[in-house]
Amino acid sequence: MGDYRKMWESLGMDLEKHDALCAVLPELYGATYLTQDNRPDGMNYFNFVISEVHGLRIEELSRHRENGGKVLGTFCVYVPDEIINALGAIGVGLCGGSQFWIEDGEKILPRNLCPLIKALVGAKISATCPYFQSCDLLVGETTCDGKKKAWEILNDYTPVHVMDMPQMKRSKDIEKWEEEVKYFIEKLEELTGNKLTYENLLNSIKLINKKRRALKRLYDLRKYTPSPISGLDALLISQIAFYDDIERFTENVNKLCDELEERIKNLKPNNKKRVMVTGTPMAIPNWKLHYIVENLDAQIVVEETCTGTRYFEREVSEEGETIDDLISNIADRYMGINCACFTPNTGRVEDIIKYAKEYKADGVIYYNLSFCQPYSVEYKKVEEALKKENIPLILIETDYSTEDSGQIKTRVEAFLEMI
Amino acid sequence: MGDYRKMWESLGMDLEKHDALCAVLPELYGATYLTQDNRPDGMNYFNFVISEVHGLRIEELSRHRENGGKVLGTFCVYVPDEIINALGAIGVGLCGGSQFWIEDGEKILPRNLCPLIKALVGAKISATCPYFQSCDLLVGETTCDGKKKAWEILNDYTPVHVMDMPQMKRSKDIEKWEEEVKYFIEKLEELTGNKLTYENLLNSIKLINKKRRALKRLYDLRKYTPSPISGLDALLISQIAFYDDIERFTENVNKLCDELEERIKNLKPNNKKRVMVTGTPMAIPNWKLHYIVENLDAQIVVEETCTGTRYFEREVSEEGETIDDLISNIADRYMGINCACFTPNTGRVEDIIKYAKEYKADGVIYYNLSFCQPYSVEYKKVEEALKKENIPLILIETDYSTEDSGQIKTRVEAFLEMI
Repeated sequence: MGDYRKMWESLGMDLEKHDALCAVLPELYGATYLTQDNRPDGMNYFNFVISEVHGLRIEELSRHRENGGKVLGTFCVYVPDEIINALGAIGVGLCGGSQFWIEDGEKILPRNLCPLIKALVGAKISATCPYFQSCDLLVGETTCDGKKKAWEILNDYTPVHVMDMPQMKRSKDIEKWEEEVKYFIEKLEELTGNKLTYENLLNSIKLINKKRRALKRLYDLRKYTPSPISGLDALLISQIAFYDDIERFTENVNKLCDELEERIKNLKPNNKKRVMVTGTPMAIPNWKLHYIVENLDAQIVVEETCTGTRYFEREVSEEGETIDDLISNIADRYMGINCACFTPNTGRVEDIIKYAKEYKADGVIYYNLSFCQPYSVEYKKVEEALKKENIPLILIETDYSTEDSGQIKTRVEAFLEMI
Repeated sequence: MGDYRKMWESLGMDLEKHDALCAVLPELYGATYLTQDNRPDGMNYFNFVISEVHGLRIEELSRHRENGGKVLGTFCVYVPDEIINALGAIGVGLCGGSQFWIEDGEKILPRNLCPLIKALVGAKISATCPYFQSCDLLVGETTCDGKKKAWEILNDYTPVHVMDMPQMKRSKDIEKWEEEVKYFIEKLEELTGNKLTYENLLNSIKLINKKRRALKRLYDLRKYTPSPISGLDALLISQIAFYDDIERFTENVNKLCDELEERIKNLKPNNKKRVMVTGTPMAIPNWKLHYIVENLDAQIVVEETCTGTRYFEREVSEEGETIDDLISNIADRYMGINCACFTPNTGRVEDIIKYAKEYKADGVIYYNLSFCQPYSVEYKKVEEALKKENIPLILIETDYSTEDSGQIKTRVEAFLEMI
């Protein structure tokens, strides 16, 4: 820890405040994760990653920067990691998941805004997140009103590049997105001093496809009844995917999957209800809903969220003769993500129904971060579609505080009894 | 009234519910408007328009439709009226301003959404707004998350065409907007069976420029101390601009301005504080803030809102050899509107400061409809800029209910004493 303090200091962090944050996390992690029975051995790697979340990984980023590399902070699954990696930069997903940052966020943002946005702004302005402090550039996007406007404020604290997302998915919108990706490449070439080539881009696409494939393999294993891994553990892995070293992460997810494949052979049936979660992302350390659900008689088997299927489903095609072909493949793949920021967004409803069947979910929890309007308005469409399919659905709108945990528990309990 | 009932019935309205709405409006209007002292005679026309808001004007729309014309409902100052009018259609601004519609809106939308969106959806699904019922097509846009997602729901009730707004104002975004305007022209040519020509477009541009000029003339007159017209009356005129016959409206605004120019010569100074309002739109019959402020010792002299300067400032250039030139002029003019939906939106801060000076405002009220995130997040930037300029500022966030009126009155009173 002594060495880390020096590093944190050099990153301009508020050490005292950061100590307070560091005092909270291990306890929360212990109570949420380490109390689970019969966890796969492969989770030890992820335990370790979490224990070093502000330590070793930050050291790696620092080393990368000392060697002239750049670190980019991102906040959305639409920002193409393939480009960042191909240009020799490291991308880290930065969405804030902790109540710790809300108070600072509310100093400059309205209270009735999504906790994720308040936390990410709070994390930056309080200088208590070493990832934020390690970034040479933040990459925002115009996916929702709250984030779109928050970049303007963050830009007073640190450089921000904003990608303008189209709000529809007509063919001209996809072309427009491709242009926006090219503009991002230009900016990033400038920043890194590196040049995007057919080779480095193709290699990067392959590398990240492997990572997506590993996550897909993990999620496919969750389709077994009972699932060989808890929803809590799967969520943790998805969260870590956003900032861990790509190759090491992929290797460890695959190692875990090997173990889970063995496990499946000896799994005994249980009566746990199988629950799907759909909705807004859950950033580290937001494990609230999963903790509540899995401490009842249920197991979360799939998340149709940005910290779930939207992150890894569909690979970038590796076919193509030219660098433009590859960029076009990237634009296509990303525009295939079905986020509520698009209008219409019928693909998401189809995904939810498909996953509910594939993962044999007994019911669906629509998880909405308070004041997230794209997802809260879209609820109506999902509700109608799931009703037609006779798939039980409950809406849980919540933030990062624990005040409503009891109430959520009561509602989920009633839901589980009903399904 | 008997004749109107037949018309309303033929529009598929819920007559009983509509009666309840009709019973509320005149009383509210009387108490808000007719109690004002010494109103200009020219306001009689606007009193009449309001008294016939669901009558004569709807009859005009019906006649227009009987003759094969189309009626389009719009919700935003970015939808180009010039195109609608040039193609022989009538555009009516439909944003809902009444608490009456909130309950129905909340049946399918989340409660923590802007009242304007809840009201507009409520107005449609309750079939109590004859304007909605008269529309052949609604024209939405992607200016904010709430509206963007609400179109999908409204589309189940009535045809909706959505224009995809860019979220930035780089030159490529303006080009993109021009494309979107052209796409709108295509759709509208299909709907109306008419063809856009250089002549009909130029005539339409000239007609609507005249309307904007009349409003600008009215607002310029408010720069006198004291202003020769109340903020309440000026707001009403801006609101009526959205749905009245363009020529008749323009003529009556100019007639009123003639009268106000005479008035100015004999105006006696008073001690009323001059207040500027900036923020979210106020749709009919949302007169809440103006009523509170002007029943204190103050006068609202300018609104930097969509029902204010953003609606009429800057004309569409009438220069250009070809139809494409004119369309390009339209795209330019509309992209010059400084709405918080853009990132960044520095132009709005500049406008606010400019208007505060031009209209000699003693202070600024930042008016935010509850849960409007683009404007609530942008508050911070405005606050910083106005502080530098030593312009007093207060934030009022409210909805259409009257529950908080007492509290707002107290806060505004304290603000007026301070400035």
